[in-house]
Amino acid sequence: MVKKMTENAARDADKEKLSRRKMALGRNWDAWPDYEAAEAGLHDYWYPVLWGRKVKKKPVAVRLCGKNLFVMRDQDGNIRALHDRCPHRGVKISLGKQWWPGTISCPYHGWTFDLKTGDVAAVITDGPDSRICGNAAVQTYPARERHGLIWIYMGLGKPHALEDQLPEELINPPKYALGGRIEDRSGNWRFYAENGFDEGHAKYLHRTSIWRIFKVMPTWNKIHIKKQGRWLYRVEDERYWEAEFPGVGKWTNKRWWKIMPKHKQGKFLGNTGGAKRNNPYIESRNFPGFASLSMPGVLRIVYPSFIHYEFYVPIDANHTKYVGLMFQFKGGLSKWLFYLWYLGGIRWMFHGNFSGQDHWMVAETNAPPERLYRPDVSLMEWRKLFSQPHPIRGDELDDDNPEQPVRVLSGGEKP
Amino acid sequence: MVKKMTENAARDADKEKLSRRKMALGRNWDAWPDYEAAEAGLHDYWYPVLWGRKVKKKPVAVRLCGKNLFVMRDQDGNIRALHDRCPHRGVKISLGKQWWPGTISCPYHGWTFDLKTGDVAAVITDGPDSRICGNAAVQTYPARERHGLIWIYMGLGKPHALEDQLPEELINPPKYALGGRIEDRSGNWRFYAENGFDEGHAKYLHRTSIWRIFKVMPTWNKIHIKKQGRWLYRVEDERYWEAEFPGVGKWTNKRWWKIMPKHKQGKFLGNTGGAKRNNPYIESRNFPGFASLSMPGVLRIVYPSFIHYEFYVPIDANHTKYVGLMFQFKGGLSKWLFYLWYLGGIRWMFHGNFSGQDHWMVAETNAPPERLYRPDVSLMEWRKLFSQPHPIRGDELDDDNPEQPVRVLSGGEKP
Amino acid sequence: MVKKMTENAARDADKEKLSRRKMALGRNWDAWPDYEAAEAGLHDYWYPVLWGRKVKKKPVAVRLCGKNLFVMRDQDGNIRALHDRCPHRGVKISLGKQWWPGTISCPYHGWTFDLKTGDVAAVITDGPDSRICGNAAVQTYPARERHGLIWIYMGLGKPHALEDQLPEELINPPKYALGGRIEDRSGNWRFYAENGFDEGHAKYLHRTSIWRIFKVMPTWNKIHIKKQGRWLYRVEDERYWEAEFPGVGKWTNKRWWKIMPKHKQGKFLGNTGGAKRNNPYIESRNFPGFASLSMPGVLRIVYPSFIHYEFYVPIDANHTKYVGLMFQFKGGLSKWLFYLWYLGGIRWMFHGNFSGQDHWMVAETNAPPERLYRPDVSLMEWRKLFSQPHPIRGDELDDDNPEQPVRVLSGGEKP
Repeated sequence: MVKKMTENAARDADKEKLSRRKMALGRNWDAWPDYEAAEAGLHDYWYPVLWGRKVKKKPVAVRLCGKNLFVMRDQDGNIRALHDRCPHRGVKISLGKQWWPGTISCPYHGWTFDLKTGDVAAVITDGPDSRICGNAAVQTYPARERHGLIWIYMGLGKPHALEDQLPEELINPPKYALGGRIEDRSGNWRFYAENGFDEGHAKYLHRTSIWRIFKVMPTWNKIHIKKQGRWLYRVEDERYWEAEFPGVGKWTNKRWWKIMPKHKQGKFLGNTGGAKRNNPYIESRNFPGFASLSMPGVLRIVYPSFIHYEFYVPIDANHTKYVGLMFQFKGGLSKWLFYLWYLGGIRWMFHGNFSGQDHWMVAETNAPPERLYRPDVSLMEWRKLFSQPHPIRGDELDDDNPEQPVRVLSGGEKP
Repeated sequence: MVKKMTENAARDADKEKLSRRKMALGRNWDAWPDYEAAEAGLHDYWYPVLWGRKVKKKPVAVRLCGKNLFVMRDQDGNIRALHDRCPHRGVKISLGKQWWPGTISCPYHGWTFDLKTGDVAAVITDGPDSRICGNAAVQTYPARERHGLIWIYMGLGKPHALEDQLPEELINPPKYALGGRIEDRSGNWRFYAENGFDEGHAKYLHRTSIWRIFKVMPTWNKIHIKKQGRWLYRVEDERYWEAEFPGVGKWTNKRWWKIMPKHKQGKFLGNTGGAKRNNPYIESRNFPGFASLSMPGVLRIVYPSFIHYEFYVPIDANHTKYVGLMFQFKGGLSKWLFYLWYLGGIRWMFHGNFSGQDHWMVAETNAPPERLYRPDVSLMEWRKLFSQPHPIRGDELDDDNPEQPVRVLSGGEKP
Repeated sequence: MVKKMTENAARDADKEKLSRRKMALGRNWDAWPDYEAAEAGLHDYWYPVLWGRKVKKKPVAVRLCGKNLFVMRDQDGNIRALHDRCPHRGVKISLGKQWWPGTISCPYHGWTFDLKTGDVAAVITDGPDSRICGNAAVQTYPARERHGLIWIYMGLGKPHALEDQLPEELINPPKYALGGRIEDRSGNWRFYAENGFDEGHAKYLHRTSIWRIFKVMPTWNKIHIKKQGRWLYRVEDERYWEAEFPGVGKWTNKRWWKIMPKHKQGKFLGNTGGAKRNNPYIESRNFPGFASLSMPGVLRIVYPSFIHYEFYVPIDANHTKYVGLMFQFKGGLSKWLFYLWYLGGIRWMFHGNFSGQDHWMVAETNAPPERLYRPDVSLMEWRKLFSQPHPIRGDELDDDNPEQPVRVLSGGEKP
């Protein structure tokens, strides 16, 4: 009848130990060590960070993979990306000013850096004979402009070509229109990638999105993951529009105001169902699935008349830059109709409301521990990628054509 | 004349060491290890957390003893309390929805839990044959409704009856009226309990409260602590209305506008002084003292015509849920007059202004280290309780009548 | 062509290791251990913390060297400074009240302290025979009022005289006028001291200040540091008004609307250039340089007609109290003209806008690591001071005249 509190505590501890052992599977990410290590992002990849038109001759601060960088243009319009920390006393260089073409000067003592090499080119307050010149530098990062976006390479070695990493259909596309949205969000980038490629949540979480308001979503399905080139494709095997759960009840997303998608009305695109008239360029790509994912966190959703991409760019361990892009591969009048359609509603409905639901859940996600289920095969295949041979060319690129010289100095002596 | 800074530092360190040794007593809580360990609250107790009328069929999130729970009613009006974390990916279940009676579904992928057992009853996005069903669960916590409040039991073993822990006079009380206030406050729950039972502060800190504006408070007194059943009673031995402090001066709370309490005008209630007409039920309880305290942090203040309770419910190590209740044991018209009196002024004056002064001091309290004094005997006896045999029945309760089955699974396999 | 991510990581780690080794110099402050240790301030010094006129009979809370103190006057107008923590339960004494002359009572239980000794003089709620009296105390700190400011000595030993530490010209000055500004700022006090004495930043960072709007600032110069008495003087050897940086371009602060300072128009004061009529008292002091710095963080800037001081008072490791003072050594009408000049514009322009630029850079400074350059000789000499014999008299002061008895008790027994 009477017992000591310490005995109570011991009993509880035993029970908890038992409980923990039983749920050991999924308790942490030991099974995916390289994935665990990638918390603040992967190096050796190109990341889109800004619209090119927003970068002029003033430095723009950008945080990427836990590092502070700044981006600006030199006198010739070239994009330059450098580490945003003066080696002298740690002040942000981006607070400074471009006195001479192709340079930037720290606001504190006028240390002046060559934008191309990162070398100290002059120290205003130390005179022309300063010993710092040529003896200190900041890290530069390869940067390129493509499809209207600034891309930065975060590796320290020679970069692979941006083209090796771009979705293949964007390397030499026909005429196209592009709408997009870049937004900094809370939550780890891996949760965004997992969420984007996640089979299960789309049908349930997004049933209330405005984008799907008049369209029935399936209740559940069976899928497998197909790997082709650098991409993982989610391929649907069976689809169920309703289900009777034993001892619980029936569930369906069918409503009188929602329309069932028509199957196979045109040529099949992946497993999306297709439309009467698919875009010929998209049809020609023969995507094996509606949704696909590649390193370092690029989601591609193929629709009959456009392709939607999401780049989950790691700002740091707790923040992600959402880069949502919608490409329509048509020129002429269609291009302008697309802009009207995109800016008039889709940007808000799809890149806002719909992806806002994802943001909400990613911010709430709190794993590990976790308990995965059948549809999480998509997530597990993605995690495995991190421990597999790297499909993108890295250091072994043609030495004659490095995109940009690489510097490893930051705050110290030159070798 | 000249000396090195390091010598200065050494000298200071020596002096500090000496000083620390001298004040070793009270420097930390080593003398009360079980008390120290109870920072975020005690398990194996029932805690009042919400007014029952505020809980309907939507989940209400509650934080208790450092754990996130949610509380809701099933189709039959039963109160259910569960751990607020989906084992799948850690999302808060309380953000979800009750699709079927007696269940709750996570908003992310539709994992659906049985409210009574915590078991996964269905996974909407995994179809009727999901292997998760019966193989994952969330922890449930025993919950009851009593005196208009929701009570949750935080232990993992079989709970003792709520009645074993309720103030005894509340188990089978006569007709009564109840007024109360529930408020989340900053500060550790143990400081609230110590403050509430503290002999010293009442007379000095609260002298400026509106509740005491027309009443003289004593300057100091002598007390002893009497233990009876599960309760510690503060019993006054001597009382002084003024004092002359040697070398300093005189102090009294007497003012021309304040009335001295009349002694022994009726039957004596504990050491409160009594009134012309004591409430018969209160008088019949023969409380040995005005103020009493019991585990797990319940203060009882006995007045001639009502009893005031404060439950210091641990939210986590830094926050406390203040549950202040005032019981008047009368029916009929008296009941409605009580509500008028309580809501018209006492709720604000007593449960607001007066207890707000306690909140202020608890938020400022910064111990250990501490230097206790004579009146702190109340506090020391309370701390000792934590290392003594537990006076409440626990696991050994009648096995035929457990209040609710207990589950130790959270995010893992079933045994 | 193909490689594992772990190889990439290893390569990057190697490169980073190499890079770190190369910039080892300046990577941390191992070269200045006493400086590193002084993060939250130096003990054994007097610090100005408040204007005397702001301290009356109510306690004023002040944070200094990471400790919470309070300052108030006793019945005779003496300034008293005590540790702001009641030894009983850690509540801030400064929230309390002065019931009797020369005492302060804690708001919680009425523990009453003698302002002069820090001893417990009475415990209101424990009666006249309390055993706490004479057995507990709070630390007192020597405090003085001088030049309208409250000065507190933070050492635990007997203090040296404030005069041993005051700028010598302020010990027995002629008639003077004083304008000043006290402001709490973010950033470590050592960065403020380094910045204030820093040769390099003045000419570049402050070129845009309103104070310098019509005055050309040099581009660079050569200096050496002269040590005289307790002071380090920055002495200019060469000055350059413009510079041609090889491969970059020319830089000068000359503008058509800026006036070049006239050299040597009067008697030379340090290296400031002097004026037609120097203030005779300033001229008589024969300062070897315009800017000088002494422990524990006092900057002196000598102008022909006034002297400007900045005291960088450590609040804690991350905050600094900026005490900016401007002394003009004249009486009579000149004094009132000075106040007009100071309050009409200089206070805002010099102690606001100009020193706000310093605040901005100090808040941005993020070192170590750091990479020092030639003008940082000022900073290096200052850091070395911390490991050198202490130039100010400490414990060895005349024992017959200690400024105030010293107490090492806080929350414990008396020796």
